[in-house]
Amino acid sequence: MKAVLAYSGGLDTSVCVKILQEKYNCDVITVTIDVGISESELKQAEEKAKKLGVLKHFTIDAKEEFARDYVFKAIKANASYEGYPLSTALARPLTALKVVKIAKEEGADALAHGATGKGNDQFRFDAVFKSEAPEMKIIAPVRELNLTREESIAYAKENDIPWGMDPDKSYSIDENLWGRSIEGGILEDPSVEPPEEIYEWTKITASGPETVTLEFKEGVPVALNGTKKGPVELIQEMNAIAGKHGVGRIDMIEDRILGIKARENYECPGAVSIIMAHKSLEHLVLKRKDLKLKEAVEPVWSELVYNGAWNDPQRIKLDAFIESTQEQVEGTVKLKLDKKYCAVAGMESKKSLYSQEAASFDKKISQ
Amino acid sequence: MKAVLAYSGGLDTSVCVKILQEKYNCDVITVTIDVGISESELKQAEEKAKKLGVLKHFTIDAKEEFARDYVFKAIKANASYEGYPLSTALARPLTALKVVKIAKEEGADALAHGATGKGNDQFRFDAVFKSEAPEMKIIAPVRELNLTREESIAYAKENDIPWGMDPDKSYSIDENLWGRSIEGGILEDPSVEPPEEIYEWTKITASGPETVTLEFKEGVPVALNGTKKGPVELIQEMNAIAGKHGVGRIDMIEDRILGIKARENYECPGAVSIIMAHKSLEHLVLKRKDLKLKEAVEPVWSELVYNGAWNDPQRIKLDAFIESTQEQVEGTVKLKLDKKYCAVAGMESKKSLYSQEAASFDKKISQ
Amino acid sequence: MKAVLAYSGGLDTSVCVKILQEKYNCDVITVTIDVGISESELKQAEEKAKKLGVLKHFTIDAKEEFARDYVFKAIKANASYEGYPLSTALARPLTALKVVKIAKEEGADALAHGATGKGNDQFRFDAVFKSEAPEMKIIAPVRELNLTREESIAYAKENDIPWGMDPDKSYSIDENLWGRSIEGGILEDPSVEPPEEIYEWTKITASGPETVTLEFKEGVPVALNGTKKGPVELIQEMNAIAGKHGVGRIDMIEDRILGIKARENYECPGAVSIIMAHKSLEHLVLKRKDLKLKEAVEPVWSELVYNGAWNDPQRIKLDAFIESTQEQVEGTVKLKLDKKYCAVAGMESKKSLYSQEAASFDKKISQ
Amino acid sequence: MKAVLAYSGGLDTSVCVKILQEKYNCDVITVTIDVGISESELKQAEEKAKKLGVLKHFTIDAKEEFARDYVFKAIKANASYEGYPLSTALARPLTALKVVKIAKEEGADALAHGATGKGNDQFRFDAVFKSEAPEMKIIAPVRELNLTREESIAYAKENDIPWGMDPDKSYSIDENLWGRSIEGGILEDPSVEPPEEIYEWTKITASGPETVTLEFKEGVPVALNGTKKGPVELIQEMNAIAGKHGVGRIDMIEDRILGIKARENYECPGAVSIIMAHKSLEHLVLKRKDLKLKEAVEPVWSELVYNGAWNDPQRIKLDAFIESTQEQVEGTVKLKLDKKYCAVAGMESKKSLYSQEAASFDKKISQ
Repeated sequence: MKAVLAYSGGLDTSVCVKILQEKYNCDVITVTIDVGISESELKQAEEKAKKLGVLKHFTIDAKEEFARDYVFKAIKANASYEGYPLSTALARPLTALKVVKIAKEEGADALAHGATGKGNDQFRFDAVFKSEAPEMKIIAPVRELNLTREESIAYAKENDIPWGMDPDKSYSIDENLWGRSIEGGILEDPSVEPPEEIYEWTKITASGPETVTLEFKEGVPVALNGTKKGPVELIQEMNAIAGKHGVGRIDMIEDRILGIKARENYECPGAVSIIMAHKSLEHLVLKRKDLKLKEAVEPVWSELVYNGAWNDPQRIKLDAFIESTQEQVEGTVKLKLDKKYCAVAGMESKKSLYSQEAASFDKKISQ
Repeated sequence: MKAVLAYSGGLDTSVCVKILQEKYNCDVITVTIDVGISESELKQAEEKAKKLGVLKHFTIDAKEEFARDYVFKAIKANASYEGYPLSTALARPLTALKVVKIAKEEGADALAHGATGKGNDQFRFDAVFKSEAPEMKIIAPVRELNLTREESIAYAKENDIPWGMDPDKSYSIDENLWGRSIEGGILEDPSVEPPEEIYEWTKITASGPETVTLEFKEGVPVALNGTKKGPVELIQEMNAIAGKHGVGRIDMIEDRILGIKARENYECPGAVSIIMAHKSLEHLVLKRKDLKLKEAVEPVWSELVYNGAWNDPQRIKLDAFIESTQEQVEGTVKLKLDKKYCAVAGMESKKSLYSQEAASFDKKISQ
Repeated sequence: MKAVLAYSGGLDTSVCVKILQEKYNCDVITVTIDVGISESELKQAEEKAKKLGVLKHFTIDAKEEFARDYVFKAIKANASYEGYPLSTALARPLTALKVVKIAKEEGADALAHGATGKGNDQFRFDAVFKSEAPEMKIIAPVRELNLTREESIAYAKENDIPWGMDPDKSYSIDENLWGRSIEGGILEDPSVEPPEEIYEWTKITASGPETVTLEFKEGVPVALNGTKKGPVELIQEMNAIAGKHGVGRIDMIEDRILGIKARENYECPGAVSIIMAHKSLEHLVLKRKDLKLKEAVEPVWSELVYNGAWNDPQRIKLDAFIESTQEQVEGTVKLKLDKKYCAVAGMESKKSLYSQEAASFDKKISQ
Repeated sequence: MKAVLAYSGGLDTSVCVKILQEKYNCDVITVTIDVGISESELKQAEEKAKKLGVLKHFTIDAKEEFARDYVFKAIKANASYEGYPLSTALARPLTALKVVKIAKEEGADALAHGATGKGNDQFRFDAVFKSEAPEMKIIAPVRELNLTREESIAYAKENDIPWGMDPDKSYSIDENLWGRSIEGGILEDPSVEPPEEIYEWTKITASGPETVTLEFKEGVPVALNGTKKGPVELIQEMNAIAGKHGVGRIDMIEDRILGIKARENYECPGAVSIIMAHKSLEHLVLKRKDLKLKEAVEPVWSELVYNGAWNDPQRIKLDAFIESTQEQVEGTVKLKLDKKYCAVAGMESKKSLYSQEAASFDKKISQ
């Protein structure tokens, strides 16, 4: 049997390669989808895959598609599930789609992922796998064997699986353009403040405050500090800028799809700052009535995406509605960043509905 | 005619005293309701009132009532109208109620307030005045004469009205326990960053980070850093603590009741930090289903209160529902404050619904 | 001054012609928009207008446009405001639009309507008049003179205004393709059962039960009893068929735009039967999740339309969403009609989501 | 092992007795909860149980409790799940509660029900069994053996199980005070009109129209045609009256808890007529704002109850809100019934918010 595995190069998916080969008798093709991972990690993943004796390894650059067709929709929707900007949730459907594409090209029999039976990712992978390739078998070795992280580590050691992480820290990390998530270890105790060591993207390195301007057109950012940027570049730069001021840390209790509460930590400097600017601009250019309706729709959109229902027709219908409100969302927003704090510090828009004449207590009411 | 005026001691209400005396031929009784104003301001108001030749002046301490019966309900409801914690909106109905009480005791014929025809406060005063004393006349001189701020200033100068504010700055200020609002002047241009000078409560004076613990019981804060506190004291201390770290500044575009967009600036250090802690704790102790329903109810509650409908039976019905969710909301929340930034840094609760066993990827799924 | 008046030929608008001429010194152009009125009434209106000495009279056939661009949208939205299928509410914006068009062609200075200051129609006319021709004056003589019906009758008699209605009954009638409304007189007492005499469209003349089939495509009815029909014809026939079985009477307390409760009576045989079939079919072909979301959107749509906000961008955005659900709504619905009763008696659809295999207790659960 | 079975006397639960005895080696105690079943059926159930060799049989009269604590709450909530008045859904939690009570008194080890793995009732029984007696085993033989109706019939014949139903018709029936449901057989084809034979409660036997008056107090009916009645008696009489006019037939596609669409048929003459009257009265006595909020809450309440979450704290919280609106709901409603048609024919209430003065076009607008 030939199986195509969504491969990150991390512990779980590396263990999966071996299990697929030995327990499921599969020829394994690994696919790493680049939705915003570092060059070095992509290279490491490729090398590990080869050491693990895979049939083939693919690295697919999907950053542009991810930014334009997924993240930009999230910006328009002010995407937030209980405060989480949906970084991983947004990327999984695209990753799964690309895996299916390669599986079809390679004539594979099975699709595989490394998700556990407790988390959310299993639903996000399964949804796309089932709808796009109902004829293929889905194999989720970690879930099927009900492996704990400790068992995975033991299995990796026994089988001499190359695996880069320091086993003492044992955080589980996921990264893409829209954010970085950190789970496990000491973080599982909600009474404990997250240690500084978990943060990679939001270490404060800037020495003082900084002001940036974001220009929006049809609801999405198109320029940074006056320079036009493509989606990927703009998001990467906002991650860097907001990140060096420590902006974008999220520490929350999250209700997982299965109804389990989990303590989750994220670093989303770009997401937090861009959505803050977007929301603020909407208040300048949209009528109260439209804001209210959109605010009622946003959590429905976000919950669908969180639950892995990206391809659900309802998500697409809601996007039709959201889209129809964004033509108006145009203008420039200044953000001020300093020591984890981020705030809007001025906005301008040709489509502004604000009228000093109407609002000011210095002007008479026109009769 | 005898009129009782809700009197703050500021420009508008001072002008109103004179107009009520001269244009409306009223004997004026001024009432200053203390919902969290400084001693010196209360004294100043009294002195000004006397200089203006009022019949009587009353100072009423309503802080305890305001904190317990208004602010605490707002905490349970995570009160927010488009991001505004409703500080002034919450206080107006209580102020109006007290004014009516005195008007009845003094056998007055009219109730007066200094609100303009453009803002929100007119609706909040009128609603209570009409429902509590339908037999009395309502006089709102600034609204009826359609006075601009400039005209008020001119009138004050002409009539030698004592009025403390530096006329160059011309901000319009309102303060109470739950927050401070600053309007007017340069702030009316949304493209301009608010100047530091507008902030009184959130000047950064602390030299480094600080951690505080808030203990909640039945949805409201009952202790600060381990010491039990009454509502007023607790809120005042949180204002002081969060304030000295610069936490609680709000700069927003707000949709006023009349449909006008306005640029509004607030300092709400206590409100921002306490509600952040309360919301976070709710995510630890309430089921997803209950969170969702409560999140749907909260903006309805907040909009009613913003619109001056405090005494509307619907607000009371919604509070019955909100109240029923708060028994569960018990526990201790650590907040970390530094340089305008505030974040939850650990929570503990006997009523926590979080289970490490269920959530951890280090534990097997129990079958 | 030249004024163009939306003219029905009834008492109020006939009185308006005279008032416009005499009190407002206008040359009056009358326009009767045919959104489903009988030939004889159109002719009568024309004749009356001429007798009243108007400058010009226009009769505009807008039935097709009304059915296709207004009523069909209402069917897709299962339009209902507290139980009222929005017949008049739907037609007013189109009527107003046509009046504006003629006013522009004729170089008029003013737009006029006969609505009172208590009802809903004033808002519906004004909204379109203001947005489409902000440069023209709006004259609403009945509202401006605060005329009661009695005063209108007196004025009509005095001024020898031709006016067909029996003054003893004094119901106020409005009719179009989508329904007939009856107001006033004895109906203003909600404790009284409406007398048979008010009904024109739903007199029971059929001797026994009848079954009809309605075929839907993309959410709208396209065939009746197996024969393809255009929108106007189909609705007229359903009015006739359902009407002769007495189906479609509505007797309700309605909350008018101004917050006044009114007792309203309608005959909407086509609307009631077609929307019953449409809703029922939706339950066969739409997923629960989509039904729930659509059911949340429908009252928002209906309230907007009721309030005269047909041209509001929000209505258009909601229609984008509703439209996106209707591709699926295809199939044939049998309706059984008899003695005021109407019920679905069988449905078939290629897009049915019903599976006997899945539902039946006679079939095993497939593992 | 000692098992207590919720026993209706029908095919499924009779088969369960035998299976519990033979396959599960249980001593079986049967309990029939009377939530509005005929005397003869209760007697039949008892006789059958004895023939099946049960250890003990109990018949519990829970009609009063059902009417007062369940149905009356449903009336206040205008209970409707997609058009279904929740008759069976309302009764199951009470039935389950009573079964648990007896199981505890009898020192049983297991609780048993006859629900299948496809329908809704399994969730309703299980929810109460688990929360009220977590220590007892739940046995659902039909679900566990994945029995089809045909297999149940075969098993009944083989084992000589007394079973009254004509096997050719093979409808599955459930009855209580609030309605009767009919499933299976030809009804599983949604294109077929339900045959007359399925109806027991709504056979038209009245010769002409009839008017009844229902008096409401605090949101519930307290008198019928001027005579005070207790809850059970009132509902039974409305079932009889509306039933003999054929009122209350419901033929619908319903989304079951598991997401399966099913064709469902109900006879709910009392529910349909009483809720029609209640809703209509609410429109007379509640403000628009309160109606809107209540209409948003009602489907949430109904879905919870449909899903078996009667004991969920959220249902209780929603009832607190609903209850708070009902004090106002007082008055008398006339209903006219004839040939399956039912309509309100007049209302009177001391708490009416209708004002002829305000609404009438015969009265001037007061300035």
